[in-house]
Amino acid sequence: MTKTHPITPCLLLDTARMTTNIERMRTRLQALGVALRPHVKTCKNIDIARQLTAGHPGGITVSTLAEADYFFEHGMTDILYAVGIAPGKLPAVADRMARGMALRIVLDHPQTAVAVAKAAKTFGTRFRVLIEIDADGERAGLRAEASELIEIAAILERAGCHVDGVMVHAGGSYHCDDTDSMRRMAERERDCAVTAAGRLREAGHEAPIVSVGSTPTATFAEDLTGATEVRAGVHVFQDLVQAGLGVCKIDDIAISVLTEVIGHRQEDGKLLVDAGWMALSRDRGTADQAVDQGYGLVCDETGQAFDDVIVTGTNQEHGIIGHRDGSPLNLDEFPVGTHLRILPNHACATAAQHEGYWIVDSPYQARRWLSRCRGW
Amino acid sequence: MTKTHPITPCLLLDTARMTTNIERMRTRLQALGVALRPHVKTCKNIDIARQLTAGHPGGITVSTLAEADYFFEHGMTDILYAVGIAPGKLPAVADRMARGMALRIVLDHPQTAVAVAKAAKTFGTRFRVLIEIDADGERAGLRAEASELIEIAAILERAGCHVDGVMVHAGGSYHCDDTDSMRRMAERERDCAVTAAGRLREAGHEAPIVSVGSTPTATFAEDLTGATEVRAGVHVFQDLVQAGLGVCKIDDIAISVLTEVIGHRQEDGKLLVDAGWMALSRDRGTADQAVDQGYGLVCDETGQAFDDVIVTGTNQEHGIIGHRDGSPLNLDEFPVGTHLRILPNHACATAAQHEGYWIVDSPYQARRWLSRCRGW
Repeated sequence: MTKTHPITPCLLLDTARMTTNIERMRTRLQALGVALRPHVKTCKNIDIARQLTAGHPGGITVSTLAEADYFFEHGMTDILYAVGIAPGKLPAVADRMARGMALRIVLDHPQTAVAVAKAAKTFGTRFRVLIEIDADGERAGLRAEASELIEIAAILERAGCHVDGVMVHAGGSYHCDDTDSMRRMAERERDCAVTAAGRLREAGHEAPIVSVGSTPTATFAEDLTGATEVRAGVHVFQDLVQAGLGVCKIDDIAISVLTEVIGHRQEDGKLLVDAGWMALSRDRGTADQAVDQGYGLVCDETGQAFDDVIVTGTNQEHGIIGHRDGSPLNLDEFPVGTHLRILPNHACATAAQHEGYWIVDSPYQARRWLSRCRGW
Repeated sequence: MTKTHPITPCLLLDTARMTTNIERMRTRLQALGVALRPHVKTCKNIDIARQLTAGHPGGITVSTLAEADYFFEHGMTDILYAVGIAPGKLPAVADRMARGMALRIVLDHPQTAVAVAKAAKTFGTRFRVLIEIDADGERAGLRAEASELIEIAAILERAGCHVDGVMVHAGGSYHCDDTDSMRRMAERERDCAVTAAGRLREAGHEAPIVSVGSTPTATFAEDLTGATEVRAGVHVFQDLVQAGLGVCKIDDIAISVLTEVIGHRQEDGKLLVDAGWMALSRDRGTADQAVDQGYGLVCDETGQAFDDVIVTGTNQEHGIIGHRDGSPLNLDEFPVGTHLRILPNHACATAAQHEGYWIVDSPYQARRWLSRCRGW
């Protein structure tokens, strides 16, 4: 769909900031000698994905088959679907491979491998598989030394599938307190991946791909020897969670939600605005960080942040804005009709609430609408 | 858009449960002698809205102009936009009124009234306005006895606008501990609305509309004398927050997210599924209730709830499922590929993550796809 003009609340994208973020990661990974396979679940837009992949081999990472379809329709073929495959989706994967998508899937359980082997026979498809390895107990994956690693590879190989290597995501990097611990997490992520890939190769599998990454570990890794690609996505926009981790500065954050003041709460010195959780998401990712940004940090219309003004509460289409310390705002400075921007805790979550972006210059002027794909 | 078959994660709708929920509220309000003006921000679908308004005067409540447009395109004209109007949206409101939408707006600030009066002159539009009244300090609205009430009405009247009455939403009903306090909250909501409307009438305004409501107060109100309409929306689907309040039973909840097991966490006896916060939302509305349902209560594929199995964590496209008390699940009972359903904390938030509903019979069989409107 195409939008003709912005109506609040809407998502703004500062492309100058985005380009700086993209270039910074590109320079960093070039120095480390490893390719980027950007995770496009953050942007979900083809123009941005093309900018992200420029200067890299061109492969992307997705989190849904709907994303895979959208980017394939726009000419991208080398796609890693980085969520453990649900057996119920194997017919859809086989269908896409038959239509020319170089789609790789991920799994970490012998039961899944058996399902993939069965589907390979049913559909005559040689699935391309990365085995997921765990670095930190955060979510999914086998330990690098697990016996199931070789068991799974053997099941896949017998079914004629490609054991293309391993994938690790150190989600624990989001709970690191300082840059030293993020560096150690990046090294652990690399080490687990390389160890697991080495075991596959010793067992006779080619395992050409060693895929690591998250925005924090990609930002702080000092040595990526043995890794063949890094996955990062949030770095394209950055957000308050990343700023809280020290991955970026507040002024690097490239997306914000434009909102308008609709009322004043005289009794506690707070503003009502027309951006609630529907526009901001319910994400509270900074709640456990040193600086709690509520449901988002507030900026003026030009994007200049107020250090101490946050969204303190949300309903579906209402936001409540106040000082972080609870002291009353001077409401005369924010008459009804004032436009404000809200920086997101989590770029992926906030962007997901919107159908697209308004590209803005600074100071605020909407120039162009970019749509996002969605669904599953 | 039309979907041809469900792919996990997706939103399921049990229409038998929905119909029971709708009939229960209809019967209750008929006994109290007051009309329902359903809040269609929960369902965002015309077929469901038609079922909700059957037997009522036909007016609806919306939370965005996008909803107003969608329902107007489907033949509904009597629309209350129940979020304090942003002055920047007045040109859009004037445009819709000129095209025949009987759109009412809401405000609570003299600055907004001045903006409405100015827009009335600019566009030659006699805006229809309800003045928002506060019952509990939760969000927006003037106190029933505030001097600004009469000031605002005078500004609007001088500009040729219609002072159509008052609107109250007792959001505090969501923090009541028992049904007695919800009854008292319903009475306070009614009393504030009737008092404010009485003051407008004494000042010479007709103020024919006295609009009250929330699903909890609509469920427990014992007397609605003086109110002309009740707004409720969540009751159409119900959810875990409402069940926690005693507004409904778990078995009344009509929507759920279908998901598939994609892995096992042997180390802590948890499941990985393909529904994360993108499919469930980040809503944690039961976190402060007596029973914390995590990111949702888990059911088998037929919709039968496991009392003690919840979604304990979410990433974008991953959910982690375990016992509420942290004890390990017997993972053998949930092999990879098992389908589960997840009941939502907050129906509005979970449904908002989806493009539409799969209507299901029980046991699970997808029959038909209903789309939702979205955006602003």
